Amino acid sequence: MFLDQKYLFTPGPTPVPARVNAAMAAPMIGHRSPDFSVLIEDVATRLMPVFGTRHPVITLTSSGTSALEAAVVNTVSEGEHAVAIVAGSFGDRLATIAETYGIHVHRLNIEWGKSCTPDQLESFLKTMDKPIKAVFATFNETSTGVLNPIHELGKVVAEQSDALFLVDGVSCIGGVSVDMTADHIDLLVTSSQKALMLPPGLAFAAFSDRGLEAIRKATAKRFYLDLNRYVQAYEEQKSTPFTPAVSLIAGAQEVCAMFEEEGFANVVRRHYLLRDMIRAGIRALGLPLLTSDEDASPTVTAICSGAVEASVLQKALKKNYSITVAGGQKQLKGKIFRIGHMGYCTPFDILKVLSALEIELVRQGEVNHLGVAVQKAEEVWLKHV
Amino acid sequence: MFLDQKYLFTPGPTPVPARVNAAMAAPMIGHRSPDFSVLIEDVATRLMPVFGTRHPVITLTSSGTSALEAAVVNTVSEGEHAVAIVAGSFGDRLATIAETYGIHVHRLNIEWGKSCTPDQLESFLKTMDKPIKAVFATFNETSTGVLNPIHELGKVVAEQSDALFLVDGVSCIGGVSVDMTADHIDLLVTSSQKALMLPPGLAFAAFSDRGLEAIRKATAKRFYLDLNRYVQAYEEQKSTPFTPAVSLIAGAQEVCAMFEEEGFANVVRRHYLLRDMIRAGIRALGLPLLTSDEDASPTVTAICSGAVEASVLQKALKKNYSITVAGGQKQLKGKIFRIGHMGYCTPFDILKVLSALEIELVRQGEVNHLGVAVQKAEEVWLKHV
Repeated sequence: MFLDQKYLFTPGPTPVPARVNAAMAAPMIGHRSPDFSVLIEDVATRLMPVFGTRHPVITLTSSGTSALEAAVVNTVSEGEHAVAIVAGSFGDRLATIAETYGIHVHRLNIEWGKSCTPDQLESFLKTMDKPIKAVFATFNETSTGVLNPIHELGKVVAEQSDALFLVDGVSCIGGVSVDMTADHIDLLVTSSQKALMLPPGLAFAAFSDRGLEAIRKATAKRFYLDLNRYVQAYEEQKSTPFTPAVSLIAGAQEVCAMFEEEGFANVVRRHYLLRDMIRAGIRALGLPLLTSDEDASPTVTAICSGAVEASVLQKALKKNYSITVAGGQKQLKGKIFRIGHMGYCTPFDILKVLSALEIELVRQGEVNHLGVAVQKAEEVWLKHV
Repeated sequence: MFLDQKYLFTPGPTPVPARVNAAMAAPMIGHRSPDFSVLIEDVATRLMPVFGTRHPVITLTSSGTSALEAAVVNTVSEGEHAVAIVAGSFGDRLATIAETYGIHVHRLNIEWGKSCTPDQLESFLKTMDKPIKAVFATFNETSTGVLNPIHELGKVVAEQSDALFLVDGVSCIGGVSVDMTADHIDLLVTSSQKALMLPPGLAFAAFSDRGLEAIRKATAKRFYLDLNRYVQAYEEQKSTPFTPAVSLIAGAQEVCAMFEEEGFANVVRRHYLLRDMIRAGIRALGLPLLTSDEDASPTVTAICSGAVEASVLQKALKKNYSITVAGGQKQLKGKIFRIGHMGYCTPFDILKVLSALEIELVRQGEVNHLGVAVQKAEEVWLKHV
């Protein structure tokens, strides 16, 4: 519409800061050079507080799905039993990957748009009559905008079973607080293009002592995604087992600097502020939210069809305001649209998408007054200024 | 405050688009190479519609002040008489440069915050009893946010005198419509870091047939700013007389592409929309505007101290919202602040600065309701969607 500006509000990929792009454009270095060892050690250790882990964070050159697959193949073997919490399409994907490897997956199906409660998990675990090797959980269900109560779920797993607790943190790590020890998480994986403010292309894995031990003992067939190889290459040579995406890792180093400058606790607070602002604004427009306040994700918000179809609003945002949001997936296709607000996102960005929505709804005659959504969101922000 | 985002709303320098930065980061080329000849010819000709000229646009490697100086020394000689319209600090600067060169400058002083009317210029020219070599005008007075009626002023100059009409277009070329023939402009100069979306470092000069002839005949001592040398180097070799800022010129080429993609008429319309939006929003907040709607610039808006001192608001915008605006200059120092809205600026950017202003004014207890400024600005935008 105006200039070449495109506003990206999908729940990944997310906007990449100019300084991260600049860092990625630095002269290439050899991935078997001492310079790279310095780089990978720096990133592995500076990411530790972001993942809430006591071990250096492992970097894979691959996408988020590979991280989920790595979580499976490095912990559970063919014929073993696992529980998968499925509350959306990414929970489903994790379960499907495990099934592909011949693992007996017991699905705890949760209504899409709701979180899994500790009680639901506890009851489900109690029905299991086989030893459960692992419980798979989606920290933040991108398809519905639900943040699962991972701390409470981890506690249930630890108290009710000997299972490993394996967590898909793809669309929230970098935007939420996590403590792998206190939360009883054994393996936590994510990818680069969400709250970590990087382009797609990297996956990360962090583990507990117990998770690390499980990886070392795992017997499933794997090669590129064998986390043990990554741990060994890191421990012995501050290196990677296979050619890494060097420039993306240089970008990750700059992201660490940005987290440290803002203060990671402030980064997390900002994401909750963005969530509260967008929910207040969406409510003011009379659009239905898919999730309850209790279950609402700090990184992505799902909005249902109301007076205007979700898909119609999604298209109008693109056409008239150059704003890209995401539609629904699978059973929610055509029924919701999703606004990502993670990573390189500020309160002004939330006001931007709310302004576009309210102008469009007034234009379509569905809302009477301009400014109503922005006003409510500004009220939320005002309390934080 | 949040992340490293800094929002630049000064009337120059202005934000540089990522794709322009990318173009400037292309591999360096020799400035005496055939590649550079292709580049400079491309920029010189593609900028012609932006300047409304029939001649290729000349590029100088220097700042805006040098462009004003070039306008003076290439047209008027020591001891000759000139009229300078002075309606702000940049009109004053142009007059001062001419005085430095021993030119008899007759200043037509206009109240700061108002435009020069054709009648004022006509009356003033009638009082001149010496031959006037040139009339100097500031197209857009950056210090007050006034756009002078350059078409009407040019007509007066053409009808009432034999003088050359020399125009400082620094803070508006790239954001306004201009036709050097119809507007009777003989020399039009500007710099890169305003509506042309580039970093500082380049100045541009465009001329009419008559302006070109005057430059060729000019006798004032000059070397680096001798426009005749630039015209000759361009005409004979598609080159520059002195080492040019090659990467900035590569950036200018990308800016031409952006103007063409949006359509230059749409670029101009966008600037007037931004002006109308910000004025509607500022009025809703009860803050006084320095200029009338008739005189208001499409590229910069000056806001006076009201219930809150201008300098206090300027500081709060920076501290609490990472927004940089400009203060007043000379006699307006401490009395106004100025918001630039030129170049790489969209309606969402205007809503951003209005949101920050209204949150801050509510925070300070000077405005009762959030959303009022945004609402009024959105109303203006809605008519254009």
